[in-house]
Order: sequence, then C-alpha cells, then structure tokens
Amino acid sequence: MAYEPKMGRIPIRDLSPQQPENTWPAKAYVGEVVPFQATVFKEGHDLLGVDLLLTSPNGLQAKHRMHEVGIGIDRWQVDVLLDVQGSWIYSIQAWNDDWATWLHNAEIKVPAGVDVQLMLTIGGQLLARAAKADPESRVLKEAAATIATRSLDPLLRLQAALDPRVTAEIERQPLASLQTLSLPLEIRVERSLAGAGSWYEFFPRSEGAKRTKDGRWVSGTFRTAARRLPAVAQMGFDVVYLPPIHPIGTSFRKGPNNTLDAAPGDPGSPWAIGSAEGGHDAIHPDLGTVDDFSAFLDAAAKNGLEVAIDLALQCSPDHPWVTEHPEWFTTLPDGSIAYAENPPKKYQDIYPLNFDNDPIGIRTEILRIVRYWIGLGVSIFRVDNPHTKPLQFWEWLLHEVNTEFPDVVFLAEAFTRPAMLYSLAQVGFQQSYTYFTWRNSKTELEEFLTEISHEHAAYLRPNLFVNTPDILTEYLQFGGPAAYKIRAAIAATASPSWGMYAGYELYENVARPGSEENIDNEKFEYKARDYAAAEAAGRSLAPYVTLLNKIRSEHPALRQLRNLDVHWSDDEAILVYSKYLDGRYTRSGRGDAIIVVANVDPHSARETTVYLDPTRFGIDPSESFEVTDLITRQKFIWGLQNFVRLDAFVEPVHILRVELPKGK
Amino acid sequence: MAYEPKMGRIPIRDLSPQQPENTWPAKAYVGEVVPFQATVFKEGHDLLGVDLLLTSPNGLQAKHRMHEVGIGIDRWQVDVLLDVQGSWIYSIQAWNDDWATWLHNAEIKVPAGVDVQLMLTIGGQLLARAAKADPESRVLKEAAATIATRSLDPLLRLQAALDPRVTAEIERQPLASLQTLSLPLEIRVERSLAGAGSWYEFFPRSEGAKRTKDGRWVSGTFRTAARRLPAVAQMGFDVVYLPPIHPIGTSFRKGPNNTLDAAPGDPGSPWAIGSAEGGHDAIHPDLGTVDDFSAFLDAAAKNGLEVAIDLALQCSPDHPWVTEHPEWFTTLPDGSIAYAENPPKKYQDIYPLNFDNDPIGIRTEILRIVRYWIGLGVSIFRVDNPHTKPLQFWEWLLHEVNTEFPDVVFLAEAFTRPAMLYSLAQVGFQQSYTYFTWRNSKTELEEFLTEISHEHAAYLRPNLFVNTPDILTEYLQFGGPAAYKIRAAIAATASPSWGMYAGYELYENVARPGSEENIDNEKFEYKARDYAAAEAAGRSLAPYVTLLNKIRSEHPALRQLRNLDVHWSDDEAILVYSKYLDGRYTRSGRGDAIIVVANVDPHSARETTVYLDPTRFGIDPSESFEVTDLITRQKFIWGLQNFVRLDAFVEPVHILRVELPKGK
Repeated sequence: MAYEPKMGRIPIRDLSPQQPENTWPAKAYVGEVVPFQATVFKEGHDLLGVDLLLTSPNGLQAKHRMHEVGIGIDRWQVDVLLDVQGSWIYSIQAWNDDWATWLHNAEIKVPAGVDVQLMLTIGGQLLARAAKADPESRVLKEAAATIATRSLDPLLRLQAALDPRVTAEIERQPLASLQTLSLPLEIRVERSLAGAGSWYEFFPRSEGAKRTKDGRWVSGTFRTAARRLPAVAQMGFDVVYLPPIHPIGTSFRKGPNNTLDAAPGDPGSPWAIGSAEGGHDAIHPDLGTVDDFSAFLDAAAKNGLEVAIDLALQCSPDHPWVTEHPEWFTTLPDGSIAYAENPPKKYQDIYPLNFDNDPIGIRTEILRIVRYWIGLGVSIFRVDNPHTKPLQFWEWLLHEVNTEFPDVVFLAEAFTRPAMLYSLAQVGFQQSYTYFTWRNSKTELEEFLTEISHEHAAYLRPNLFVNTPDILTEYLQFGGPAAYKIRAAIAATASPSWGMYAGYELYENVARPGSEENIDNEKFEYKARDYAAAEAAGRSLAPYVTLLNKIRSEHPALRQLRNLDVHWSDDEAILVYSKYLDGRYTRSGRGDAIIVVANVDPHSARETTVYLDPTRFGIDPSESFEVTDLITRQKFIWGLQNFVRLDAFVEPVHILRVELPKGK
Repeated sequence: MAYEPKMGRIPIRDLSPQQPENTWPAKAYVGEVVPFQATVFKEGHDLLGVDLLLTSPNGLQAKHRMHEVGIGIDRWQVDVLLDVQGSWIYSIQAWNDDWATWLHNAEIKVPAGVDVQLMLTIGGQLLARAAKADPESRVLKEAAATIATRSLDPLLRLQAALDPRVTAEIERQPLASLQTLSLPLEIRVERSLAGAGSWYEFFPRSEGAKRTKDGRWVSGTFRTAARRLPAVAQMGFDVVYLPPIHPIGTSFRKGPNNTLDAAPGDPGSPWAIGSAEGGHDAIHPDLGTVDDFSAFLDAAAKNGLEVAIDLALQCSPDHPWVTEHPEWFTTLPDGSIAYAENPPKKYQDIYPLNFDNDPIGIRTEILRIVRYWIGLGVSIFRVDNPHTKPLQFWEWLLHEVNTEFPDVVFLAEAFTRPAMLYSLAQVGFQQSYTYFTWRNSKTELEEFLTEISHEHAAYLRPNLFVNTPDILTEYLQFGGPAAYKIRAAIAATASPSWGMYAGYELYENVARPGSEENIDNEKFEYKARDYAAAEAAGRSLAPYVTLLNKIRSEHPALRQLRNLDVHWSDDEAILVYSKYLDGRYTRSGRGDAIIVVANVDPHSARETTVYLDPTRFGIDPSESFEVTDLITRQKFIWGLQNFVRLDAFVEPVHILRVELPKGK
C-alpha cells in the first residue's frame, strides 16, 4: 500500500479562520469571539461528532464541541472567546458518533417493532462500552443492565438509553470511532486595541496655536496640545493620533492650499520629514523637546489615552539621510536625487526611499527608529502610504517589532488597489484604513460591512475613519450635519475600531475647489479651532460623538468584528444591521444585542418596513421584544416586521438596544 | 536579519489553476486551453512584466508573457494549450519592466520639455544595457548611439527608442530588475477523453432481448448487443457505458418496478452483484463469456467506440465474498450480515462493504479486480455511488490505478451533497455526474454553467447526462419532445462531456407513479426497443442527437470546458451563452465561436432581445457579423443587440456559428 492518501478517514476540509493560501497565521484580538468552522462529512448515514481542539498561548488545551450550521452543506462551527494574547493553535477532530447513530436508528426501529432484539443488543453493547470507559458511573452501569434485561418491555429497555443522565455522561465521553484529526493551524491573538478602539487625530501644532497682533502664527506645542487631551478623553476616545512630529524640510516647502511658494511663516507639511534639525528620530523644535513629548505621553495616559505617531518613510530634500546615506535614495545620471513623481505630476518636496540599494542598511535604520519611539513609550504607529514601500519590507519590519514588542500596533494607511490593501493586512498590519469613506449608499455599505466583518475578518481589522486631512468626501461636503451624524454612527457601531480627524465635530465641510480635501488644509498651515464656543452655540457634533463612544463602551457587542448581520428594509436608503454577543461572552453574563437602522440619504425623511431575523440574537421569530433607541431614549415593541420613520433632519439613525429575554 | 519574509520582492499571489487548499494538483486534459492567472503588483508606479514559466511532462520549458486583465485588480493571465498528457509544472515570474517604465515616462516628459536631457540619458543607458545583453543586435546598437547623440533634436533621439524593431528586440530580452519567482505548482493533464466525449448508456441484456411465444424473456447477449453499436457510433457517440455485467444475486431479488417479489423469470437489478456464478470479476452467463465480452470490445473499437463498465462496490447476499470474506462486511451481534438501510427503508438485496475491518485486504482485492478488467481492454469505469465508500479509499485506488495506467478514466456517480461531490473530483475522479438534471430554469442554468466552466474547472470535469436509469426528471416527464431537444442541446454544447441513456431518443417519459424514474424500469426487467421503427416514423430524437454530435466534432470550441461565457437576454426563459476558441489553438488556424440561444420553457414561443459581448470572441463591439444556425441552416446578421424568436414547438434552440472576421 505504497501511496498514503492525503484525505483522512473522515474528510475534514476548509478550516476557518485561515488566511488566503495559509501563508501567515489568521488573526484575532483579545476579547474577540471567533467562529471556528470546518467542512466535515463522511460516506453513508452515520452521525458524526466534531470537536475543535484549541491550545492557548499558555499551553492550555481545550475541546469545544462543534455543531452543524446550514442545511446540507456539512459545515460545522463553534464560537470561542479568545482571551489571551499570543499564538493559539487549533485543529479539528472528527469521529463517527456510534451512540448517536444507534440512537437515531433505535428510536425509529424499536417503536416500529423492526429488528427490536438486535437494536437493543447493539445498544446494550454500546452502553457496556461506555460503562467500561467510565467505571465510576453508576448511571451507565444501570442503563447497560436495564437495556440488557430481556424480560423487560422493549420500550422500557430503550427508555433506559434515552435517560438524560445517560446522554449527559456519554456526551462527556463520546462513543467514538474512526477518529480523524486535521493538520493544526495557527491563529495569532493581539491585544484588544489592535482590534477595538476609538481614534482621534489632531495636529499638535494647531492645538494652542495663536496669531500675534502682527499676523504671524505662533505654533502650538506638546504642552499646549496636552490641554486638548481632557476634551478628547471626554468624548470617549481611546487613542490620539498625531501626524508626523519631526522637523520639516524647507526645500520646495508647500504653502497654504498645497501651493508651491511657501511664505517664510508657513509651517509646511509634517509629511515632508527632515531638516538640519534632524530626521525621523527628532522632534520638531516648534513642538518642544523629547521631554515635552514624554510629558505629552504622560498627560495622555492620565486621561486614559494612548498616543499613536505617524511612520512616514519619506524624506524632505533636507533630511540628514540625504547627505549621510545617499544610497538610500535613487541617484539619477545627472547626480541629482530622484524626487517623487507620477508624470506629469512632480512632488519635489519629497524624496522617496530606495529599499533596494542597501536593503539591510535601511531596514536596520528604520528598525532602530521604531525601537527609539517605542523606548519613549509609543506603542501605536499609523503608517503613511505603506503601499509605496515594498510589501516584503513591511512583513520583515512588523515581524521583527512584534516579536520583541507584541503590544505594538501598526495601522496601514493604504488607500490603494485591493490586492495591495489586503496583502498589507495579511503580512502583519494590525489595522487598516479601508474604502469606507467611499461607501455611502445602502447597497455599497451592505456589501462593504459584510466584507469587513466576514470575508476579510481572518486577517484585516478595519479602522473606519470618517474623515482624514486628505479626505473630505462629496457626501460630507454636501450632506449637511445629518451626513456627519450618519457616517459617525455607522463607523462607531459597525466596526470595533473607528476614527475621526479634528474638525469633523465642527462640521468642517468646505473643500478646496476641485478636490476632496478641506480648504485651507491643516497639512499646510495652522488651524486654531474654538471647540468650546461651537459646543456652547449648539453647533458641535461633540455631544453626539460622546454618546456614540459611550454606547460603544457599554455594549460589548459593538467591540466585536465578526458578529455583524445585515437585515432587510424595503427602502433603498434605509440600512439595517445588528450585532449580537451571547451572554456566555459578556462580563455581566447577559447577552448584548444592538440593531442599527440608518437613513443614509441625508436629505430626506423616510418611512419603511424593516424585516429582522431575530434568531440572529437568540430570539424566537414568533416573539416580540422591546427595543430602546440609545440616541433618543424612545422605546418600541419590535418583532419580525417593523415600521420605521427616520427623518435625517432630526435623527437619521436609530441605535436600538434589544431587551433580550432572560437567560439570553 | 533573522526573519526571511515569505513575500517575494514583487508580490505574486493567488495562482490559478489550483485546487482548493492546493492539496492535489490542478487538472486539465490534452487539448484543453487553460487560462493561467496570478495577482501580481508592486509598490509605486513602475510597470511590471509577468511570465508564466511552464515545464511540460517532456521536460520542455517555455515562457509565456502574461497580460493584465480587468481594471485595477492586478490580475495577469495567459492562455496555453496543454497538448501532452502527464504532469506539468508552472510558476510565475514577475519583474520590474525598466524599459516600459522609462518609455511611459519619457513619452510624457520629453515632448513636454521636462527633464529632457535626463530622460534621454536614462534611455541611452537602458539601450546600452540592452545592446550589451544582445551584442549581435545592430538595431539596439544603433538606437543606443542615436539616443546618445546630443547634437540631435531630442524628439528624434526619443524616436530612436520608439522604433518598433527596438521594441521587438527588447520584448525578446526584457530589461528586467527585481525578478521574483513564485513557488511551483503542478497541473496534471489527462487524456482527452477524460475531459471531452459523448457517452451513450445501454443495458446489453436488453439489446436483442426477445420474448418467446410463451411470454418468457430471452436475454440479450454481448453478441446481440454488439449489433446496436453501429447505430450508436452513427449518432456520433464516443463511449458506450454498460451497467454492471456481473452475475446477479437471487436473494431478495427485486421484481419489476422495484417490487420485493421477483418472479422466476425476472432478471433482477444488475447492481445486486454476485451469485454462485461469481462476483465482480465474473460475467453474467446470460450475457456470454469472457470471449464474448472481448468480442464486444473489439466490435466497439471497430465502430470507434470505447466501452465503459460499471464499478459498483456492493454485493448481493449471494456474492462469493460473503462466505469467503465475511470480514469485508459488517456482522451484527445476531451473526447476520448487515444489509443496506436508511431506517425505516431497507435494502435487503444489497450488502454494503465495510472498508474498516480489513482495509488492506479489501483494497488489494478491488485493485486486483480493476486491473483484471483493464487487462481485458477496459479503460473507463463509471463508478456507482462512490459517495457511499470512504473518500480516502478512492484517493488511494485512483492513485494506484492511474500511476500504472494513466489512460484509465473514472466517472463518479455522486448524486450527493456538494462537499462530497466536489471532494471526489478533487481526490482524482476524472469526471463527475453533476446537478445538471435538476438545473432547468434559465437562472439555475446560468449559475450552474458558470460554476462548472469556471469555479470548479480546476478539478471537476462535468459529464452532463441528460437522463439515467435512475433519473427521469419532472421537466422531461412533462416537457414533451421540446424538453428532450433543449436538454440535449444544452448538455452537448455547454459541456465538453455529455451523456444519454438509451430511450431518451425515443422520448420515454412515463415515470413510475410518485418517482422520478421510468416506469417499468430497465433496472428490473428487459426492455426491447424498436429504434428503427421510431426513426422511420419520425418519432425519434436520434437525428437531432446525431446533428448535435456532428456539431461537436466540427467545432473545437465545444470540446473546451473553461471558455463558456453567459450573455444577457431580456426574457426570463431565454438562456444565452457562447464558447470561443482562438485560431492559435485550432488545427485549421481559424478561430471557432458558437453562440447557443435556448428557450428553456418547452411550452412556449418567445421573442426577446439578446445582448452579446462580441469581444468575448474577438469581435469589435461596433462590428456586425453573420451567424448560421447549425440546426436550421438559417443565417442572420448579428451585433450587440439581436432580436430572437424561439418557438419550442418548432426549434427551441439556436446553435449559431459565428463567421469570424479573417485572422481571428
């Protein structure tokens, strides 16, 4: 028998979660409830048992019985809360369930008087086998004796096998044969913030920036910016993300609105990194010193905030590397260093790195820089344009950093084509910006939310930023305040990670003509905002944002990624989805179910019928149940079909808490 | 630099064709044109070159340049005709196309007067590099000299680079950098008949069976059945498939219409294999001797037909194994051998094999039997109910047989759930019965045909039988002669393999009440058919079937699997698809394009508009072209939108040959 089949005795196939092509481990984050699945089947009519064998990073092994899902697709599943950071190993074990198979046949044949003695004899043999495997069990011993007593009525003998205590004992130690084990797979669990968190982006130079009487700007500093932190914490954010904090080049510095002729007072783009004052390991003198930065980190920590900095691997022509390491750039035949361009467009203020001339030198230096900031207390990096650097480099860097510092989180700002965007997530980025800002209609959102929560969830953690300094979509430009509510509500509830760039709460919606960016973009100038005045005047979204983050913190279902289900509505602009977390996985022990109903047309009031599948949150389809709108505190009685009216000019979104029946 | 990234310098991902999880090699058949694909991309704006490196079973290596398909999905493809049986190895090689990248930039910048000297210098360096790599080339040497001549007009210098001869030379030996090679994958090419052929099934005992004057039947024999072969060949079939030809058990023998009480003259089901006269390696004495069987094989070969026999691994209670090898069955506690059952249903005439008691013994015996028939000249086995035996067993058996006899074809009759059906194909079955008989509406067929020709084509070769002794669908029972035409036309044109069970051409459409099987089913009795009388009376589909097989033999596009494209029609019952084979792959050197338009509602005449994508067969969308209906010989001028009228009571299906423009 030379050839050893690759197929096991019981076929076990298509394990999930798994990365495409299984090149890297699947991903999850601490606290995530992960659906494990496999396709398991066998020839013939015997019933099967399927277990998930799961080994935690601590070496603890657990067995979770899987159940069949769907009809006729031979797909088995069990949900498990992964609660320890590190590398988990899982495999699937399948076996012929000899007891269940016999029971199924005996329950049909014995009452029908078919093969009665034979069926009871086989049952007796199985019970004797169970009793032998568990000699302590009186229940099994007695059942084995009863079923073997030929003088008793056959139905009574069968009854002994049906005793729930017998079922329970055998459930613990199944009567298995043809046991088959799949190959093991890895799932890497990262810290919670890798998967779930609320992010707020601001430019530290703007926070506390002032104009002097003669019209010159004085930059904000880490000290003045720290004063903004309590308000950010108050809104319920977890992370403050700062654009690059390094010295900014002066060669070809950009002026206001991306103009080519900066005036002497113009601060330049923080992404044009490097000047005589230093490069990627230096702090812009206008912002302060390393000590000031450390004080800012401390102030953030006191406010319960983590700080993310920007890792933008590009240089201004004034960056120290340009003279110290010209081999890290591309030198042209005329001796000049190549600036960034996409002909006919030129970006003369930026020298891209060349990763191929001295790959080891450049890798070593970038790893040194990342370690330097980690040493200062930074553990989140938002990576600028990772898709313009070799994918191979990121795989290497993230592996090196995360091996040494498993808590470090990298967020990929890869607004690019799908193959690159998804591959960056696959090689190790903890989080990714997505196409969310360009998914605004109901059908676009239904498809997008299903993709992020199911199709890509094994490797991609979306961070749904509603805006960025580079993105002010048409939808926000022309959708009025309702658009700002709609997008924030969807981002905050559909994804466990979402983000907002300062000014969103002030409804800043004027674009530079012909662009999808804010006019007078903060990338090129200071921007002093009076948040308090706007709030006092009732012209701020901050209270709504605060409420969204409060709802997120009170509802663990919203901090899960893979539990989103889309439901149907009759209206082409009413989007409906729910998120549910079973009580087994919540601290309170109560289940948590949220239904979001959003009118995604910000210019209308709409009435429609919403059709729910309440089995998705453990409610029988025949039951009605109370829901509470966490925005308006209104209560409704809901069921399978529900009338909804959403006026975008009043409240465009219902965020409904479902009052689950006890024990759910 | 401890960690070695798994990602290559240029990412090359998602190679196709490939089996799910890449557990077994992908499949193709001799003569098949296979689309090879990969997702290839890189950071930045440089242009890429992508090659398929393909090694044939002869060890010949070839390089095929791939081209980008779709927009923004970074997917590359090249189609290759695989013309040698055996194991092919392929990998994908990607490289930075330095020349194309420069050319793209130079063509924008030089005419615009931007960086002119620099661009021409770089171009000169590239041409010098090309000339150095190919010192024989005068074209390159001259172009390098011209572009370097500073006294010339810059546009003239650029012109030297644009010379088509330069392009051609560099195309042959590209200026590549960052060359990256994927891991190799295997694609196993089997003989043509594994993928493409027309099958006809008959019961040899019926062919020539006669009723004597006293009402008893005299069985047909191999000698009488051989007289039917010329007619089968005449209809254009390639394979004659015979139900089991072994001795039939008498215990619990089934009578007519699957009744439990066979009368003495009832022949029994050929699938109840084994009697005192022998088992799986014996021939039913009523059919003749081994010599008679050999003569039948010879007669078939003379008619250009191959013979497929049935491999039905189950036994009647009278099979010799029951006494010689009781360990190959399941013995119950009462000492009896378990018959097949699915409680409450019992199949007492069948003992299923138990593959777990003595796996080596049973495998050895079955391999011996298969080898025995191969030794007699059989090289096609239609496998009965493979899904009731361990998948692992089939993987082993097919590997052993095909290693020794690569030409042997196994057809899986797995009418079962998808996981098992697809897995049987994956572990090695050359062909599979499918869900075709239950896909009758337009939308069902569109989805089904797309699945078989694209989604599953890497491992599953469909054989579209229109009926079997077990399957007479409602559609055929009630659809009249039109239904028979529609189903045959779709099966014969949509799939390179199709099949028909005798009686189909006679429109046999009466079912046993409450079943989807023919009444007076040939499985349980003799059936003498007068094909010639039906044909003479114009009540036979044989001329239509003959025409279908003739069209197949004249149109190589129809013997391909992966070239099917569905097109749109406005009518809910008008199904449209096309098949195209480029002239590079045909013997004549002319392209071959067929459009099938079928009215799948057999009770109606329908008029609608059909919308074609003529780029699918290499025709510009603005062109009109002539099509000829190969059924009616009518000609039409077609284009993007076409009026169609199909009266099911006249001709329900157009099979249109496209008159391709010269050179296609």
